[in-house]
Amino acid sequence: MRNRINELTSWMEEQQIDVVFLNSTENVFYLTNFHTDPHERLMGLFIFQNAEPLFILPGMEKQQAIEAGWSSEIIGYADHEDPWQLAKEAIGKRKLPEVNQIAFEEEILPFRRSQALIGLFPHAQVSSAEKKLNYMRVIKDQSEIDIMRKAADMADYGVKVGVEALHQGVTEMEVLATIEYELKKKGIREMSFSTMVLFGEKSGHPHGNPGKRSLKPGDFVLFDLGVVLDGYTSDITRTFVYQGASDEQETLYNTVLKAQMASLEASKPGTRIGELDQIARDIITNAGYGDRFPHRIGHGLGINVHEFPSMSHLNNDKLQVGMTYTIEPGIYDPNIGGVRIEDDVLITKDGYETLTSYPKELQIIK
Amino acid sequence: MRNRINELTSWMEEQQIDVVFLNSTENVFYLTNFHTDPHERLMGLFIFQNAEPLFILPGMEKQQAIEAGWSSEIIGYADHEDPWQLAKEAIGKRKLPEVNQIAFEEEILPFRRSQALIGLFPHAQVSSAEKKLNYMRVIKDQSEIDIMRKAADMADYGVKVGVEALHQGVTEMEVLATIEYELKKKGIREMSFSTMVLFGEKSGHPHGNPGKRSLKPGDFVLFDLGVVLDGYTSDITRTFVYQGASDEQETLYNTVLKAQMASLEASKPGTRIGELDQIARDIITNAGYGDRFPHRIGHGLGINVHEFPSMSHLNNDKLQVGMTYTIEPGIYDPNIGGVRIEDDVLITKDGYETLTSYPKELQIIK
Repeated sequence: MRNRINELTSWMEEQQIDVVFLNSTENVFYLTNFHTDPHERLMGLFIFQNAEPLFILPGMEKQQAIEAGWSSEIIGYADHEDPWQLAKEAIGKRKLPEVNQIAFEEEILPFRRSQALIGLFPHAQVSSAEKKLNYMRVIKDQSEIDIMRKAADMADYGVKVGVEALHQGVTEMEVLATIEYELKKKGIREMSFSTMVLFGEKSGHPHGNPGKRSLKPGDFVLFDLGVVLDGYTSDITRTFVYQGASDEQETLYNTVLKAQMASLEASKPGTRIGELDQIARDIITNAGYGDRFPHRIGHGLGINVHEFPSMSHLNNDKLQVGMTYTIEPGIYDPNIGGVRIEDDVLITKDGYETLTSYPKELQIIK
Repeated sequence: MRNRINELTSWMEEQQIDVVFLNSTENVFYLTNFHTDPHERLMGLFIFQNAEPLFILPGMEKQQAIEAGWSSEIIGYADHEDPWQLAKEAIGKRKLPEVNQIAFEEEILPFRRSQALIGLFPHAQVSSAEKKLNYMRVIKDQSEIDIMRKAADMADYGVKVGVEALHQGVTEMEVLATIEYELKKKGIREMSFSTMVLFGEKSGHPHGNPGKRSLKPGDFVLFDLGVVLDGYTSDITRTFVYQGASDEQETLYNTVLKAQMASLEASKPGTRIGELDQIARDIITNAGYGDRFPHRIGHGLGINVHEFPSMSHLNNDKLQVGMTYTIEPGIYDPNIGGVRIEDDVLITKDGYETLTSYPKELQIIK
């Protein structure tokens, strides 16, 4: 954590940024190793170019933050106290030289808090802390990769449990409940997003909601799920057919699989990120389904289930060793249903590795 | 929904606010009946004093929003499109008179989006939309109360499942998994926050994390859980003792129960909200545990699990019919463990009603 703070302060020096304020649970975790959801209460980390950092958070969280390893100044405030006033006093004691530029999470910090922060440094210019934090977080170190590998294993396990729970007449929610039950028994406290189990035509919406739809022969079965493990996320999608598959289902499936594999194969250091979307989109378009792939090829993955890099076809950045993201093309038909296949990908020196590894060839569940 | 939009536009007229922009999933749901999490993508609702509303959201969500009942203009944008540019064009067509004042969710809208919004109306003054939305949402109508009652019943059921799952040696996570499994089988897709099951000394932290701690005779067992049902939340806490309770455990428990009951009894239209915290705090302080009750008496409850009213002792607003909130005093000892008892409360004409109803007298689980 100290290395990360040092990297940040070096950047601050280069950019002549005097103070960085971080408010998101994710960036605070990245720099403090303390992960909590303070709900509507303020939790914030002040990093100074030339002074000790200051961590301010609800009083009842203070002890756990110290146990997580935070050893610089920490202020735990009570509900009746004004954390901005306490921060002002603590910052006053630091006797900073004039603060000319501050940076904060422009994409995350709520307007009201931005105004309170600016009120502490009224003569400072404002800039984006994400510019640095997103790019620090985009390259995972070994300890992060180790955790993400375990999180991906748990996602694979979730799909396995889901497949085993399929039988004629079972509902989407029953299968979903079984998946999460088995994952929680393994110690998973939080899924990385609302688990999706969709049968038949329900899978034809990229963002369908699981419900009481029960399983019938010939249904597509789509699982999209992931876990949060030690602060890091995973995210897998697999699609199956229950009992017999029609020719059209096979065509849909194999088109998506071909697109996904092609996009994976292009994943290596130096590839333009936008190319991954384009490669998959071209395959799906050439197969005649271009208008049925309404979303990006994927998203960066890490502490957030959606983070940098942006996997849009417009992203001209290059892939680098240590980047982690999803590749998840899909084709959706509101009548037949949809197919999506998603892996978590790590860029390695030689190319890529998928962290998720559940088999992908078309499986007809008996 | 149309009534709510009309109430909002009447307020806008009074306040001379030309445009309200809402970005939070909760307020958007409140006014459109469409509930979704668009992740990092923009979803926003423009309400104009004298023009048709405009709903802008990711294209793949558009159909579901229409199915949820939205019938005014709706723009579904693709990932490569700039939603702010599309909004600008659609607003341009409305040929609004000069926009002098806009309101948005100052406590929620991220800084960057606030700047994009201000860019659409560069000559407008900025004010808070929460001022109105929070106070609209604080009074629940009958349809909302009906849903919250069902959500509270599900929370009661979760506690019941948890109690039945207790046996010597079971872990916190195993019990948690069982609770969520049974709730999901009943159709619950989302808990309203991370379920808490804490044994023994683990319950001594107001925000402990469930883990592999296994159940031993003499342990406190604390459940804190809630569900999201049709967009509304519930939140219950119950504490038990497994097998024999010590005198000190009984004293802790009965002190919290007395505080909770006193605070409930004071719940009626016209009571100063801050008094509810004070009443409970006085009882706990007089029993000698004042420094072991480090949080507010509760929080407002509705679409958000934490919303208005603020249940701080500083809140001078009066309780009104239709308000819903939690009453949840607690005493925490890092060695013995903690006790918290929480109900969801509805203010009625004659006083109050608890929506949660799991029994509260001290129960020793055999």
